[in-house]
This record gives sequence, C-alpha cells and structure tokens, in this order.
Amino acid sequence: MSKADRRFMALALELGRRGQGRTWPNPAVGCVIVKDGRVVGRGWTQPGGRPHAEPVALAQAGGAAKGATAYVTLEPCSHHGKTPPCCEALIAAQVARVVVALEDSDPRVCGRGFKMLRDAGIEVVEGVMAEEAARDLQGFFLKTEQGRPFVTLKLATTLDGRIATATGESQWITGPEARRAVHMMRARHDAVMVGGGTARADDPSLTVRDLGVAYQPVRIVVSRRLDLPLMSNLARTANDIPVWLAHGPDVDGELKRTWEGLGAELLSCDLEGSQVSPKSLLDSLGSNGLTRVFCEGGGALAASLLNADLVDELIVFSAGKVIGAEGFPGVGAMGLDRLAAAPRFELSEQRALGADIMSVWRRPT
Amino acid sequence: MSKADRRFMALALELGRRGQGRTWPNPAVGCVIVKDGRVVGRGWTQPGGRPHAEPVALAQAGGAAKGATAYVTLEPCSHHGKTPPCCEALIAAQVARVVVALEDSDPRVCGRGFKMLRDAGIEVVEGVMAEEAARDLQGFFLKTEQGRPFVTLKLATTLDGRIATATGESQWITGPEARRAVHMMRARHDAVMVGGGTARADDPSLTVRDLGVAYQPVRIVVSRRLDLPLMSNLARTANDIPVWLAHGPDVDGELKRTWEGLGAELLSCDLEGSQVSPKSLLDSLGSNGLTRVFCEGGGALAASLLNADLVDELIVFSAGKVIGAEGFPGVGAMGLDRLAAAPRFELSEQRALGADIMSVWRRPT
Repeated sequence: MSKADRRFMALALELGRRGQGRTWPNPAVGCVIVKDGRVVGRGWTQPGGRPHAEPVALAQAGGAAKGATAYVTLEPCSHHGKTPPCCEALIAAQVARVVVALEDSDPRVCGRGFKMLRDAGIEVVEGVMAEEAARDLQGFFLKTEQGRPFVTLKLATTLDGRIATATGESQWITGPEARRAVHMMRARHDAVMVGGGTARADDPSLTVRDLGVAYQPVRIVVSRRLDLPLMSNLARTANDIPVWLAHGPDVDGELKRTWEGLGAELLSCDLEGSQVSPKSLLDSLGSNGLTRVFCEGGGALAASLLNADLVDELIVFSAGKVIGAEGFPGVGAMGLDRLAAAPRFELSEQRALGADIMSVWRRPT
Repeated sequence: MSKADRRFMALALELGRRGQGRTWPNPAVGCVIVKDGRVVGRGWTQPGGRPHAEPVALAQAGGAAKGATAYVTLEPCSHHGKTPPCCEALIAAQVARVVVALEDSDPRVCGRGFKMLRDAGIEVVEGVMAEEAARDLQGFFLKTEQGRPFVTLKLATTLDGRIATATGESQWITGPEARRAVHMMRARHDAVMVGGGTARADDPSLTVRDLGVAYQPVRIVVSRRLDLPLMSNLARTANDIPVWLAHGPDVDGELKRTWEGLGAELLSCDLEGSQVSPKSLLDSLGSNGLTRVFCEGGGALAASLLNADLVDELIVFSAGKVIGAEGFPGVGAMGLDRLAAAPRFELSEQRALGADIMSVWRRPT
C-alpha cells in the first residue's frame, strides 16, 4: 500500500469517527473520494445510520467520481436493506479503484461487497490501516459477532482510588478540563450508563453539555429492583431524551408501568447472584442496537462488569487529591483472592488534563 | 544572567544530584570550574558530606582555577567546621567570579560566604537557576529551617488504588521497570521508611538492589509497640546496614535492649492518639541528620503523614490491574468528611514505565 493510500484512509477514519455515538445500530463509517491526488468527496455515516458514508461522498464528488479512487473504512454493503447497496452506487459512479480498511463481518456482506466490485472491473485493495479501523469499529463488530456493545468504563478518582468522601461528597474530584473530556466521550458513545446507587446519590442528568452537541446518547440505569427516585432529573426528562432502565425479572408491575408512563424503556435482565447479570445486561443492550456504551460507575456496576471481563476500555481520570480509606471506592468488591486473577489492561494513552491526569487502558489483544 | 551561566549551573546541579542520599546531614552540592568557556574542574559533595563540592572541583582544576568562574549550587561555606571554609579555598585559588544558585539558610553561613568572596575582590552572581536548586536541596533547607527531612511518599497501586489483595498478596503489582525505578529512588534518599504493618506482612529488606550501588540508605520502621518479628530480614542485617526503629514512649525495656543488641538504633517518639506522632517522628529523623526520607507505606503510615501535611512529594505507580474493594488500600483511614479538606498535590511529571505509569505530584507552592 502506498503512503498516499494511508494518508487518505487516515482522513476517512477521521471522518468516520464523527459519526460515533450517532449511527447505531449501524457502524460509523468514513469515505473519501480522490481524483488525481485531490479529495473531491467526503462522507460519513449520517445520524441514525443512514445514508451511509459512500453515497454522501459520491454525491459530493458528482461527475468527478468517474475514474477516481474511493477510500472506505469498512467493506461497502452489497445487500438491499433500507438503502440501496453502496457497491451499486460505487459501480454506477464508475470509480476505478476502491481501497478498504476492513472486511465487514455482517454475514449479509462479508466478502460479497468486494466480489461485486471486482466483478464490475473495479480494482479493490483491502486491509489499509485495518488495525486503526478495527479499533474505531470495534463496537459494531462486537455487536455483530458477540451480540453485545463495546464497553468503556470511566473512573474519576483521587490518587488513592476514591470517588467520594465517606459522606458522599464527589463534586468535584476532577477539574473542569477532565469533566469537559468526559462530555466529549459521552458524545462519542451510543449510551451513557450508571448503576442505581449512583443514580440515587447524584441525581445525574447524564447528558452531553456545553459542547454545542444537539444529539444526546441514551441514558441507562441498571437497577435490580427499579428502586429509583421518581422525582429526579432522569424521570423528569425521560420523554425528551431516552432513558432505559435495566432491571431484574422480579420487579413490581405497577412500578414498571409508572416508569413507562414517564417515558422510560424497560429492559428485563437475568440475575447473577443478587445482581443484574452483566452478560444479560449487555446482551439486552446489543439486541436493542447499541454498539458503544460509556459506563460511569458506580463501584458496584464497575466491579460487576470487570469481574465478567466485559470492560473493553478503561479510562482513569486521577486528581491530585487524597481522601483516605473511608472514601467510596471507584471499584466495588470483586471477591478476588489471587493477584493473578485480577483483570489486566494495557496502557493505550496518557496525558495531563488541567490539574488532573488521564490514562486510557485497553483489554489486552 | 547569560545563557552560558545557566548551562554551566545546570551541569553543577546535575553533579550535585549525584550526592543525593549520601551526603546527609550536609547538602548535596555541585560545583563546576570554567575557564575560557571550558570546564576545567567538576566536583560534588562526597559521601558522608565531606569534602565539599568546591575543594573537589578546585583540586581537579589545579592552576587553571586562577581567573576562572566557579559555579556552585549553594552559597560556599564561610565558617570553620570539620573542613576549612570553601570561601577560603576559592579565594586562595584566585577564581575571578563565583556564580551561585542559592543562598545558604544555615545561620553560620547565610550571606557571609558572599560577603567574604566580595571582600576578596571576587565578582559574585546570585540566584542563577535558584528554583531548580531549591527543589534539589529542599530536604537540606527543611532540616535547617523546620528541623525535619523532605518526605517522598511512594504508592504502587492498581488502577483502583489497591496495594494488595484481601489475602495480602502484593508481589508484584507493578512490573520490573517500575520496581527498578523505585530502587533508583531509594538510592537518592537518605533513608527508606515503612510502617510496622508492612514490615510484618512483607518481611522487606528495604535495600537498594541490582543497580551497582554500594551505599545503602538507612532503613526506618515506625512501630508504636515495637512489635516486629525478631526473625526477619531487617533484624538479621541490622548490624550491616542501619536500621532505625521509631516507637512510642511506652515500650518494654527488654524489647528495646534486644533490638539494640541486634544493631538497631531506637528513636522514641511522642504519640498522637494511639499512633506515633508523624511530627514527632520527623523531628526525630531531622535531629538525627536526615534530609530526605522515602516512605513506602503502608496505608496507615501514609495516611498519618498525609493527614499531618508532611508529604512533600507523592509518587504514584499505577499498574493496569484492578483488585476491587476488598483489597488493601494504598492510603488508610484519614477521617476526612469534606472534599475541601483533602490534601492536594500538583502534577510535576508523568510517564509510562514498562506496562505501568508513574506520576509525580508535589505539594503546591
């Protein structure tokens, strides 16, 4: 692959990421059309997942697409779904060459898009910046292959791992720069999720604020008994911004109807021990179309996801403060006795954010 | 000040740091003699604190010192102590100019060195890279001005702030690169200090290993009741490498004599509540000559020092692992209820070390 191919694919990846959090259940794909070394069309999957990236870029390119190269971060679709297949659009536009980062694992597409393009006489190059694309699109692949979304767990703690004082004071442990970064991360996920304890203690809104973002991710609360305050920010706004409540199978019917009346969507999950099973929870979120979920705690939900090996990325914000052992821990009880059994993560990124530091850790590959 | 002055002072500071951990009760000073833009002599305070940096550098320079500039990180001494005053040596060598980073706060020196040099017709420049020198020599200044050493607190924790599993397993949370960095840090401090709980649980040696360092820092254990195992690495080696035991005033005389017989030095400290008073502890260490102490926990001692605002630098090693809330916390109970009362630190440095990250935090200035 040429240096130019990598450069244009990097641009396509960047465009694709603009759709993250807004295209579910579809993948957030990017597309760049290049003619004679110049970009003549740019597109990315639009909110709600349609139109796809390719027709957007082709429309921008117009007649210039003829004889051009199309860079696409994921194999173009070959099946008639709610939109005509992108392969047909690329063929109709008479592009000469299609460069793709990743094959689509969707059984309706897998390899067929490449075949359709090649049968039409188009040169196809696969695997350009495949690793980066796999990272960006991991949520879509997890949903397709394992039926669950990508899970990012965020912890915002003191240097000794605490998220609140013993009296519950948690605002603010980290500074404004870190909180702003959290809002940007929320916007890049399909949903923001917390446990019932956090919902009761903090009365959070779980919205994206102060970024000029009109779209809001789904808000999920995991509460086995659905014992959440009916007078709360989430209840008050459930008709405007989606609220999904994941609960156990043994919840009072009247309570469920009340929440449904407020506008919430209810997801009944299996139990594991006395808690909502994290696997059942994520299966339910996946079957409802989510590809990327941003979990912001609390300690019990974090421990439950970590214990089930269901955390794909762990983002730790550390503030230069110390609270001591009476403070609330960022991760609850996990029942581990051996160090070898502790979940492990590999460092992906670290930087200073205002007075705090952020480190990003990923599940080892 | 010229660019050249800063460059040569930076070299003097670098040389001075070579003595850290080995010159107590004296400061670890560096000296460079420069003639016609070339370095003709380099010196730093030698182990045990003598000879000082200046005579070492002057001896290396020999006759070339005449008319040269001497860069010294701390005001040269003007009094007859166990060595003749460095000012006399500089005057006798007929240097033309002396550039100094910091004035000495020792009342026997404070400003008198500068006066003695100027009276001899030598040009004196003060304050070059004073901030950097103040940081390097902070332990000496704290001992001189407040009677206590500089305290570095090291925490080596999981991402959720744990230093061991519930069953006490702690080896190894961090990887070999982080552990090697810890040994380098030990070598740059006058003493390594732990609490009695850590001494009982880990049977540590607290020595500098695998770095080709012949010198060993003093090993300090803080144990109110002196209830430490007599069959232990520390007890076994107390005759070879200093062991200081800081205890409460109400310790059994027989036990004290046993430890003295093993070679340990005993420091009786006041109590604060039911624990050794951290202030009394550090006063005792300061009056015994220590300028830089490296505390490696455990949680109770860390909490006690933090609560008393006696931690000058906090170094956190974080491993990409999670243990959960049953694990031992890196910082014990602090009795804080308000977030505003939590001790705060400012980020000074952060970097990756093997699979772990290290962040260095300092008391706000």
